[in-house]
Amino acid sequence: MSRPHVVILGAGFGGLAAAKALANRDVDVTVVDRRNHHLFQPLLYQVATAALSPADIAAPVRSILAGARNVRVLLDKVTGIQAGRRRVLLASGAELAYDWLVVATGARHSYFGRDDWAALAPGLKTIEDATAIRHRVLLALERAETETDPARRQALLTFVVIGGGPTGVEMAGAIAELARKSVSRDFRSITPHCSRVLLVEAAPRLLGAFPERLAAKARRAVEQLGVELRLGAPVAGLGRSHVLVGEERIAAHTIVWAAGVQASPAATWLHAPCDRAGRIVVGGDLLVPGEDRVFAIGDTAACLGAAARPLPGIAPVAKQQGRYVARRILGRTAAPFRYRDYGSMATIGRRRAVADFGRVQLAGFPAWLLWCVAHIWFLVGFRSRLSVGLTWAWNYFTFQRAARLITGDIAPDVLTDGAAREAA
Amino acid sequence: MSRPHVVILGAGFGGLAAAKALANRDVDVTVVDRRNHHLFQPLLYQVATAALSPADIAAPVRSILAGARNVRVLLDKVTGIQAGRRRVLLASGAELAYDWLVVATGARHSYFGRDDWAALAPGLKTIEDATAIRHRVLLALERAETETDPARRQALLTFVVIGGGPTGVEMAGAIAELARKSVSRDFRSITPHCSRVLLVEAAPRLLGAFPERLAAKARRAVEQLGVELRLGAPVAGLGRSHVLVGEERIAAHTIVWAAGVQASPAATWLHAPCDRAGRIVVGGDLLVPGEDRVFAIGDTAACLGAAARPLPGIAPVAKQQGRYVARRILGRTAAPFRYRDYGSMATIGRRRAVADFGRVQLAGFPAWLLWCVAHIWFLVGFRSRLSVGLTWAWNYFTFQRAARLITGDIAPDVLTDGAAREAA
Repeated sequence: MSRPHVVILGAGFGGLAAAKALANRDVDVTVVDRRNHHLFQPLLYQVATAALSPADIAAPVRSILAGARNVRVLLDKVTGIQAGRRRVLLASGAELAYDWLVVATGARHSYFGRDDWAALAPGLKTIEDATAIRHRVLLALERAETETDPARRQALLTFVVIGGGPTGVEMAGAIAELARKSVSRDFRSITPHCSRVLLVEAAPRLLGAFPERLAAKARRAVEQLGVELRLGAPVAGLGRSHVLVGEERIAAHTIVWAAGVQASPAATWLHAPCDRAGRIVVGGDLLVPGEDRVFAIGDTAACLGAAARPLPGIAPVAKQQGRYVARRILGRTAAPFRYRDYGSMATIGRRRAVADFGRVQLAGFPAWLLWCVAHIWFLVGFRSRLSVGLTWAWNYFTFQRAARLITGDIAPDVLTDGAAREAA
Repeated sequence: MSRPHVVILGAGFGGLAAAKALANRDVDVTVVDRRNHHLFQPLLYQVATAALSPADIAAPVRSILAGARNVRVLLDKVTGIQAGRRRVLLASGAELAYDWLVVATGARHSYFGRDDWAALAPGLKTIEDATAIRHRVLLALERAETETDPARRQALLTFVVIGGGPTGVEMAGAIAELARKSVSRDFRSITPHCSRVLLVEAAPRLLGAFPERLAAKARRAVEQLGVELRLGAPVAGLGRSHVLVGEERIAAHTIVWAAGVQASPAATWLHAPCDRAGRIVVGGDLLVPGEDRVFAIGDTAACLGAAARPLPGIAPVAKQQGRYVARRILGRTAAPFRYRDYGSMATIGRRRAVADFGRVQLAGFPAWLLWCVAHIWFLVGFRSRLSVGLTWAWNYFTFQRAARLITGDIAPDVLTDGAAREAA
């Protein structure tokens, strides 16, 4: 086998972009992921809030790469990298030899050292995270319907989202709509005004990465949906059914974490220098320091952009980096990577969004329409686009949510007041 | 509250039909189910074989009954019934007083006393069952792609369905299509001819409830899909990776149980006479013997039909019984229940089905088209109909499966040969 072997770790936006750019070229490619599916993470909050089904935003990696005859897909977990021997170690016991390695293993949420908070306030990175949050939100509504104690009932109907970035803003808006509008027709004793949704952010404003003016618009939109804001308010403590925000104790049954991310352990595998979030610090060549055949891209890498700030952990950065390393491996470029910023968007419930394209900034309904079109466009696969488009149209016109399923067996203690008791 | 209170246990086809027939009448109704969703079970095998998403065939009970202002929906588990006090005991600790009680708690699969087989050969009754089977089938294909030992590889690519009724026939046909056609484009080392699908039935022929002639057509259709049949062959044993069928030992990683059902413990709760499958033996009034205000319907009841054979455990029987007890409770009928048989159908993969309407019998493509139309028609909710219709059209024209997601974390031992080793 004289063709160079490129191993890509991770089939997220970055890894997949690299694999596609190497498809049917003069290299052999192996993509390793511990999931069989690529996940369109920007819409994951819609699965968590019962608007979409998991299959709408996830597609098998194999299908996406089926046309690339030089690409092999492996369902396996990386356990280590031996850069000296050019080997990747896998959980199945196998070893993969590479000529080029692309590390695109992404990130998980970070609880800033408080790992015990993970069980109390689930984050939102995987399909399982999303269905777990959906489960929790829907079950809280079910239990509130029959709860007679006013304090417990209020705790069940209080939803706290921690983190005021795009994910937190989108989550809070979607929960407010679910808890206040979509379900009002179905329940007998819950009315829309019973529910409280709070959005907690340690910084003094929402959407820190967006311009001040758009963040202010997003703030008004969130407040119009009935979301209460706690800005400049770091979380001081978390319990089974409460959040401490500064001095304030908020009794809440459902707490969602959207505050921070921690890179996968790639830096440890490679003994590479990393920043506080565990991201490997790379230069313009995206090579891991000290290695000449190992790239780190996407959320695994801290790549300095304009003004010497690391590029944000968003899909466009990962995709452009994936395509860049493919071009480098194919010998088509030697110039350093430059991120082209086409703008960023965040949506707040139905009909509202903000979009920042540098000189052009949009807010309100036009931004929301643009957000819908862009997200449908970037969804993987024609089938998903069609399905998501129709589901959104349906949700929009009926105010209903199609995917309001609570799966998993419901243990008796879930139905009683085990968790809510603390709040009362 | 002078209006009589009707409590309906179970929101399957029977319970839901009763609740709908009592909607906005002069009674108060409470529907209790331990799931928040009604499940369209006839299409569950399509979730198990990755053709549909769970939300396509399940809808929140609350939404379905939202327009019935006299109906309350409770998410809770029944733990007992005190018929003397007219009380239902619930897992949450609450008690429900009733004037009329409709027991429609359905059935689970039965392993004929071999409950240890449940973990080896999952059955298909709930969303969780379906996603578990989907997980197992897709993971077997993934592992076969990299397995180098021929015997282990063959075991991974062997799928055994136990039970030759409609569910078993549909399951075997769908797995054969998934393992042979839908995935052939995506895998590099699995080819369609590697996979074996076996259908095992203790009786001498398939579809025992259908006329001989149609069963023979179904048999030919199943065989054309490449399914191997073992008829008149009771299962003698099950292991982690094999099935004993008579003297034959079949090494198989994926085994699906579609052989028998066992009613919910309603007969025990009510100290009522039941048949071998645990179904309460009821007369034409559908009343539980010895009770004058407690009905048993659907899979919970054994109701004698024509030729003194119990009515089959299918949706039309449950629905008609639900509507019948509603009429009785409202005082609109005193005549005994009579089942109107509009026919039965079973489908075998894409383009083939059998349909039995008594004098009219159909097979092949016309029967399959009719099956599609009927199942879309009976699906709950316009949204589901649209979504399933489009998904089927998509699957049909592309040979793809949209919902090929393996969810849940993949433990290292799943990737290695823990289970396959026994087979080798």
